[in-house]
Amino acid sequence: MDNKKEKNPDFSFLITDLHEKPEKIGTDKGLAKIGDTIVNFTFSVAKSIYLTQYKNTLQNPIREGEKVNKYVLSNALKNANMRKYAKTRPDSHDLANTYESLIAYVWLNGKISLKEVIVFLGKQFKDDISDYKLERANSIEAFTNLMNYIKKFIPKKE
Amino acid sequence: MDNKKEKNPDFSFLITDLHEKPEKIGTDKGLAKIGDTIVNFTFSVAKSIYLTQYKNTLQNPIREGEKVNKYVLSNALKNANMRKYAKTRPDSHDLANTYESLIAYVWLNGKISLKEVIVFLGKQFKDDISDYKLERANSIEAFTNLMNYIKKFIPKKE
Repeated sequence: MDNKKEKNPDFSFLITDLHEKPEKIGTDKGLAKIGDTIVNFTFSVAKSIYLTQYKNTLQNPIREGEKVNKYVLSNALKNANMRKYAKTRPDSHDLANTYESLIAYVWLNGKISLKEVIVFLGKQFKDDISDYKLERANSIEAFTNLMNYIKKFIPKKE
Repeated sequence: MDNKKEKNPDFSFLITDLHEKPEKIGTDKGLAKIGDTIVNFTFSVAKSIYLTQYKNTLQNPIREGEKVNKYVLSNALKNANMRKYAKTRPDSHDLANTYESLIAYVWLNGKISLKEVIVFLGKQFKDDISDYKLERANSIEAFTNLMNYIKKFIPKKE
């Protein structure tokens, strides 16, 4: 596993059908499932990094993993004005799926690395996110800012 | 997000407490949770890539995401002779958690990239893994081979 192509393989062939069809990016079920795993992974590592530094427990690092709440992602999508990529009359589950589809599209297209997403999310947190309510507020803002950052990589939808 | 450190940040401070304690790596709950997100993400992308190529549907790529079954991971751990990293008298859920902890440790320590894991898993598949039974058998073998590949990055446990 040492040659260059395998260090940075190109997975964009998985989205070739979507480049010309921005209306399908945000409602693709498979893309949402891949995005779900991206969101949970990057959030888990970002939260672990942030809390370990925030609580200054380097001798005893904090490692956490969890599913990002659908409410968080649906609000982040709306706050970033990307609701138009969702299906007609979406509920919050649909909106969260759209958030996940969009981030999967951008990652598969090679426009961001997951390490960049982790660092980006970690920088958005401000409070003691081991508190449930603070975590929720901080997460909505972090995912809103992330979507605002990556939306330039998503084909425009009228 | 353009400087080099952010392109390849070092997250190994999250496991500094574990390097000298191999007996704790495989039973750390937070590490297992992070590993769970790694396994689900890499498997989802690897399966999508493999099936798109296997079924030759490049015009209409197959995108899938799913949770990797605990049975698959517990068997892979045992097949790779890494059961000794699990807790005493483990059930299959514990063994799967140990698999997840170990892969999270190796990734956090910077020894493999997730793209490498995706490419590695994709190369192990042989059959039509859209069939449930074939997927299970192929997955056990793929995750066994992955553990055999990464075990050199895990501190020895007597």
